[in-house]
Amino acid sequence: MKKILVLNAGSSSLKWQLFGLDDLSLINKGVMERMKTPEAIFTIVRNGEKFTEQIANLTYQQGVELLFDQLKHLHLIQDVAEIAAVGHRVVAGATTFKQPTQITEKNLSELKSLNKYAPLHNPVQVECIETLMKVLPKSTPEIAVFDSKFYLDMPEQNALYAIPYDYSKQYQIRKYGEHGISHEYILHETANFLKKDYHDIKLVTLHLGGGASITASENGKPYDTSMGFTPLEGLPMGTRSGSVDPAVVPFLMDELHVDANKIIDILNEKSGLLGVSGISADMRDIVSNAPTNQRAKLVYDMFINSAVKYIGGYFTELGGLDVITFTAGIGEHQASLRTDIIDRLAVLGIKLNEDSNNNGNGPRVISAKDSTVKVLMIPTNEELAIAKSVKRIIIKD
Amino acid sequence: MKKILVLNAGSSSLKWQLFGLDDLSLINKGVMERMKTPEAIFTIVRNGEKFTEQIANLTYQQGVELLFDQLKHLHLIQDVAEIAAVGHRVVAGATTFKQPTQITEKNLSELKSLNKYAPLHNPVQVECIETLMKVLPKSTPEIAVFDSKFYLDMPEQNALYAIPYDYSKQYQIRKYGEHGISHEYILHETANFLKKDYHDIKLVTLHLGGGASITASENGKPYDTSMGFTPLEGLPMGTRSGSVDPAVVPFLMDELHVDANKIIDILNEKSGLLGVSGISADMRDIVSNAPTNQRAKLVYDMFINSAVKYIGGYFTELGGLDVITFTAGIGEHQASLRTDIIDRLAVLGIKLNEDSNNNGNGPRVISAKDSTVKVLMIPTNEELAIAKSVKRIIIKD
Repeated sequence: MKKILVLNAGSSSLKWQLFGLDDLSLINKGVMERMKTPEAIFTIVRNGEKFTEQIANLTYQQGVELLFDQLKHLHLIQDVAEIAAVGHRVVAGATTFKQPTQITEKNLSELKSLNKYAPLHNPVQVECIETLMKVLPKSTPEIAVFDSKFYLDMPEQNALYAIPYDYSKQYQIRKYGEHGISHEYILHETANFLKKDYHDIKLVTLHLGGGASITASENGKPYDTSMGFTPLEGLPMGTRSGSVDPAVVPFLMDELHVDANKIIDILNEKSGLLGVSGISADMRDIVSNAPTNQRAKLVYDMFINSAVKYIGGYFTELGGLDVITFTAGIGEHQASLRTDIIDRLAVLGIKLNEDSNNNGNGPRVISAKDSTVKVLMIPTNEELAIAKSVKRIIIKD
Repeated sequence: MKKILVLNAGSSSLKWQLFGLDDLSLINKGVMERMKTPEAIFTIVRNGEKFTEQIANLTYQQGVELLFDQLKHLHLIQDVAEIAAVGHRVVAGATTFKQPTQITEKNLSELKSLNKYAPLHNPVQVECIETLMKVLPKSTPEIAVFDSKFYLDMPEQNALYAIPYDYSKQYQIRKYGEHGISHEYILHETANFLKKDYHDIKLVTLHLGGGASITASENGKPYDTSMGFTPLEGLPMGTRSGSVDPAVVPFLMDELHVDANKIIDILNEKSGLLGVSGISADMRDIVSNAPTNQRAKLVYDMFINSAVKYIGGYFTELGGLDVITFTAGIGEHQASLRTDIIDRLAVLGIKLNEDSNNNGNGPRVISAKDSTVKVLMIPTNEELAIAKSVKRIIIKD
């Protein structure tokens, strides 16, 4: 049976899923975490059981090679020739890559030149692509699927910053969002769930995980989004600050005697839930500590307030909404947080169905019958979305 | 007759007003513009006529000295002893100055240490204070009235950034807004106009001028505001970008081979209406060119959309609004821009009264009778607000 392998490399993790080409059924999946640290972990499901191995300082290249060893060892593939194609999540395609793209030697060097647009993500995604070029036969297509692609359709007044226009054009500085693959997938899944054409819904999608972003869409296209030129802007996140006055950068450089990149590292890695609370980057810890810990409560309020403000802003920008859909780790599993957001939308006529919000599994409506806007919870699946893109390309070819 | 002199020094201008101490009636006023440039201009009203003089490279010190020469020459004061007190607008008091404060030698050095919190504003405001220490008798009080003071009452979840908590505290990094004097004045004027207690209104104030900021207030205190640590954040402005992903700073440093401060200069001085349109930092020019110039239209749409989003966000955060008040140069005089903002608030039940919006002078209601939120236009007067603060202090003493 022919298969599609999808690699989703993040700044410190490597998720993968193996699909059957014909029906995109899931064959197996796994994740490597804390990459390039002494605590790196390789996790794979064997015979229905989770198998975990610590492999200190595991690199992305080693991870990919090890993955193929395991796939063969578990008889998930007999031969690499069974892999019909590989899909790679790539965060930044800038304005260069406007569609999912089969990697060639020529465009690989173009892709590498975009590393600066997502310095935490693109380089490791390129590392995965290059490793597979060695592991797989030359004829196996590797397809890059870009998070940035979805947002290329966003109207210019929301996509561009009010910086000198020539810089926006010459250096491709604009909002690329992140999680574009997820927001686009959830847009389609929401329409399917409601049995509507995805062009006909005005919706806000909340992808709330370790990274968090909120996107407003209409006519099947994004209209606005909270993330910016990089995944740093927007809501406070696990370790990211979200939006900050850019003048803070030189101010902190002077106070801390470090360079600008170090400040951006601090804003990306030492801020957000972790930086404010001082205890954890994990929303579950923040929620459980908020009743007794003033700083956990503070960052929780920051997060809720920020989400409420984005939803209210987007509701107004779009002249009303049909749907709000929650997804990703926090959005799918933290029912009390969904309650705290939706309760503050009462002035817009949006009302929760507590029972449905707190109980149940899988995609469902969590708003009350008389809510002016339907609120849904739908699990995201970036890997499946990538596999669908890959299949469309290789079947067409 | 005793008088109060108010100096409002901006990054490139020096406005002043002279008031009678008893009734705060306006005696005279003037402005110096394009300070420290070859085109510096000194403007004063003499016998009802505007008198303008070009004085190349006029400094703030020279400007203040020249002002006193003119006040005597015009017999507006016979002797400096008639000045009962001077009020100075000071942008940044950080968290050090929590109230309007009489300047002493001791706190003047504290004030100077805050120059880094508003590098374009505080240094020239200090220059004015020091010049007057020489020009006036030692016994004449100089009172600093801080824009930042109003926002010290903002709830922490909106005032702090989600950066490491210790940095927020140790380096006093938080949102200070700007235009605090104006927003507080308009809050009170709005309540007066509606014959309500200012504690009892939930309102959004739009101070739209060369700098632009939007503030949400309830219970007589600010709840949220669009400007940040410095006046750079928020809406696109005359020459300021407004909010930008901080990661743009090191990215542009690399591309342009300049340091971080230079990037902030570009975001403050070459961006916004000017940087996007390429033609003007003046909203009147943008409005008149938008029908034929694609980039003027673009930045106009950015501005409107940004304002709409802030209002919708604040409406939702506060669980509804009683009033929206427009003020400052653009907010007072650009009726078509008010229309374009309010028309996009229809989904919130907010409706314009076109006749009242387009015609009439002075403070007035510009919303329709059946609008869910009253919309007002009220002219701001930062100098009068400062004079009132000064009078309260010197009368109390």
